[in-house]
Amino acid sequence: MVPIRSYASCRMPTAAILSIGDELVLGQIPERNGGWLSAELLKLGLMASEHRTVADDRQAICAALKELASRAALVVVTGGLGPTDDDLTREALADALGTELEEDARALQDLIDLYRRRARPMPAMNRKQALRPTQSECIQNPHGTAPGIAARIGDAEVFLLPGPPNEMRPMFHDVVAPAVLGITARAGGLQIATASVHSCGLPESAAAELIRSLMERGGNPVVGTTASGAIVTARIRAMGSAATDGSLERTVQEVERAWAPYSFGRDGLTLPSALGEALLREHAMLAVAESCSGGGVGAFVTSVPGASRWFAGGLITYSNELKRELCGVPSALLERHGAVSEEVARALAQGAAERCRCRFGLSITGIAGPDGGSADKPVGLVWVGLCDRGGGDRGLVTKARSFQLLGDRDTVRERIARVSLQWVRLAALGMGDAPLLWERPTQGARA
Amino acid sequence: MVPIRSYASCRMPTAAILSIGDELVLGQIPERNGGWLSAELLKLGLMASEHRTVADDRQAICAALKELASRAALVVVTGGLGPTDDDLTREALADALGTELEEDARALQDLIDLYRRRARPMPAMNRKQALRPTQSECIQNPHGTAPGIAARIGDAEVFLLPGPPNEMRPMFHDVVAPAVLGITARAGGLQIATASVHSCGLPESAAAELIRSLMERGGNPVVGTTASGAIVTARIRAMGSAATDGSLERTVQEVERAWAPYSFGRDGLTLPSALGEALLREHAMLAVAESCSGGGVGAFVTSVPGASRWFAGGLITYSNELKRELCGVPSALLERHGAVSEEVARALAQGAAERCRCRFGLSITGIAGPDGGSADKPVGLVWVGLCDRGGGDRGLVTKARSFQLLGDRDTVRERIARVSLQWVRLAALGMGDAPLLWERPTQGARA
Repeated sequence: MVPIRSYASCRMPTAAILSIGDELVLGQIPERNGGWLSAELLKLGLMASEHRTVADDRQAICAALKELASRAALVVVTGGLGPTDDDLTREALADALGTELEEDARALQDLIDLYRRRARPMPAMNRKQALRPTQSECIQNPHGTAPGIAARIGDAEVFLLPGPPNEMRPMFHDVVAPAVLGITARAGGLQIATASVHSCGLPESAAAELIRSLMERGGNPVVGTTASGAIVTARIRAMGSAATDGSLERTVQEVERAWAPYSFGRDGLTLPSALGEALLREHAMLAVAESCSGGGVGAFVTSVPGASRWFAGGLITYSNELKRELCGVPSALLERHGAVSEEVARALAQGAAERCRCRFGLSITGIAGPDGGSADKPVGLVWVGLCDRGGGDRGLVTKARSFQLLGDRDTVRERIARVSLQWVRLAALGMGDAPLLWERPTQGARA
Repeated sequence: MVPIRSYASCRMPTAAILSIGDELVLGQIPERNGGWLSAELLKLGLMASEHRTVADDRQAICAALKELASRAALVVVTGGLGPTDDDLTREALADALGTELEEDARALQDLIDLYRRRARPMPAMNRKQALRPTQSECIQNPHGTAPGIAARIGDAEVFLLPGPPNEMRPMFHDVVAPAVLGITARAGGLQIATASVHSCGLPESAAAELIRSLMERGGNPVVGTTASGAIVTARIRAMGSAATDGSLERTVQEVERAWAPYSFGRDGLTLPSALGEALLREHAMLAVAESCSGGGVGAFVTSVPGASRWFAGGLITYSNELKRELCGVPSALLERHGAVSEEVARALAQGAAERCRCRFGLSITGIAGPDGGSADKPVGLVWVGLCDRGGGDRGLVTKARSFQLLGDRDTVRERIARVSLQWVRLAALGMGDAPLLWERPTQGARA
């Protein structure tokens, strides 16, 4: 029964994350290390209590290091370890420790070896990267020139890591993760455990209603929902003893049951992966015909390694000419109903399935905006067709559904990709008639 | 001559940004308001010096408010203004001001009116949202239930805004932006102005070498480079009088000239937009045949509204069968050379151009990983084909180039989409032979 907001009073150890860089604090490039580090710390059972981003400013970095070290058991710092004049994190750490910088013999040798392997002379400015404050240790960087630095400010363990994620992440796993396990072990074990359950096709309000009893304030595990595009996720957090007594897993299963068949996976599992599992189970292949999505559904599907076992490819029929030429949509249909219509969505889906020789053909045709809308067919209207060539006596069944999406061009395209893949997944599971988020009311019978 | 790292000593006013939320600090959802706010403040000529994210913890929020207000002229806070027990930002502001909360009559009336418009009863818990500390003012929220709050802590102007971007952003423009203009006016005008120039196809080191004189430390405007995937961006920052005397524009033009033909746009202009401009000028249409990218190039291209004027569509030939069926690649070619080969890349490009009746056909076939690599064809190897059906006597010219990319599956796919579109852009500009980043050395003559 320990919601996070009381962590200060119950004296659980926490972590703080400090990101350094002018471009970050000015909003010129997005800060992404903080979120990644927090999520990794959570997996290890330690909670971050603060993120901070400051400029390449020696005084500001030093002040932040001291403040964070006075509050947290662990401080992870990224950025400002490069070779140039505005990389000042080393100097600021020395200031915070009240010591000077000295050259680390092994770090220097690593730098020399790195440039030898690259068959390039080491620029003079890079020698600075072998400096570290006295009373600190260098951390090897297998993927770049900037070694990290480990130190202790008061009771806090402090780690400086380089900013580029491909260098920072392996160093976190090598050196920081073991330190985290030490901190949680001294505090009596896992402090926090989390899990998530993802769904697609339910509105957030309906999803929350289905798990209302689990979402009550003060519960432990506590459950919250977040919506991102078409995906509604339940985030489950167990603190203290609940982190280890099995109640997290029980809560996860309760959410999965409550959200079935819309719940498709846990934690890192993506919708295309879940779709792939469903198609593989049926030995079914998928093809697409994409108009307003322009290839985005295919790109999303093939983000899964090994997708070739259940995805063949498809047709990007952006122009009406290609709807005819590549997919065999009759000219008359396009003229009579327009490209964004039930009839054309059905013809595209059938064309994709037949021409790509797949069981399932999925089509997307809509008005992504910002222009091209009308009173009759507003921006955000998307028709999705699904052809199922089935097996044996079931023959060929083609359906189409229309959706009315809110948001800008990117949002409309992203949302329809997700909802349409959930439709294919549900169809493969034999539940293709389940209602879906943003679907328009059916408008009577049509041809 | 004022680099950012000395802002403290020259007493320029700065802003601080505080984001509040358990999910944010735990890394369960990405924090995005900070970057947006910083970028908006920059446009208004005020520099952010710090971002901070803390949990829904009353003490932590209060401490952060006090620290930030002691350093910055402006503190913008987002999140924690909802109606539930764990929304504590109002209470923390009252603590920081040393006052109590009181009900704001107008804010309460706005809430009542909002629920009346929605034809729903106002839940009792929402009444809390009309509370504000004495000595503060409510800010109307046209798009949600949470009013903002404006206050002053010491010399700092403090604004609390709701977390959802669609509510926060209009309130920023209505109320915070005018306050920012007041702060910069009192400090003698625009404090900072920025611009960026984007390039694709140059390695970052080569790009930096070409503008070395502009990148000298202490310069004003000062120029830095950042690389994100295949895009290298010059970020140009002018401080003090340089922000208004035309030197920013001169520097932008110098960078554009130095990076030609690889520089493709400024500020918000994207590579697909620049490609579209080049194709439109030539009255040329583009089609794609995508294997490992799975539709991602088409999706990227059609992120531009109006892309139908220069992009027809294409073929997602993920399976070998579809390379034959949809694109006419001879079986013998696939058997002899494999799908990832110069010969197949050429055949795919030609098939795309001819079957989609476009001047340019672009093909992508590679090994995106993590599996499927071999000694001969490692993960990250991508062949790109470009067919130009040209005009009149030029006839049909098809070329293929191979690239060796580093990174995971997503990275490989994202990078090759960018580099290949730059190739098409350069070809449309008549410079299709310009060397490109990550290209493999040519390996002698081939069929």
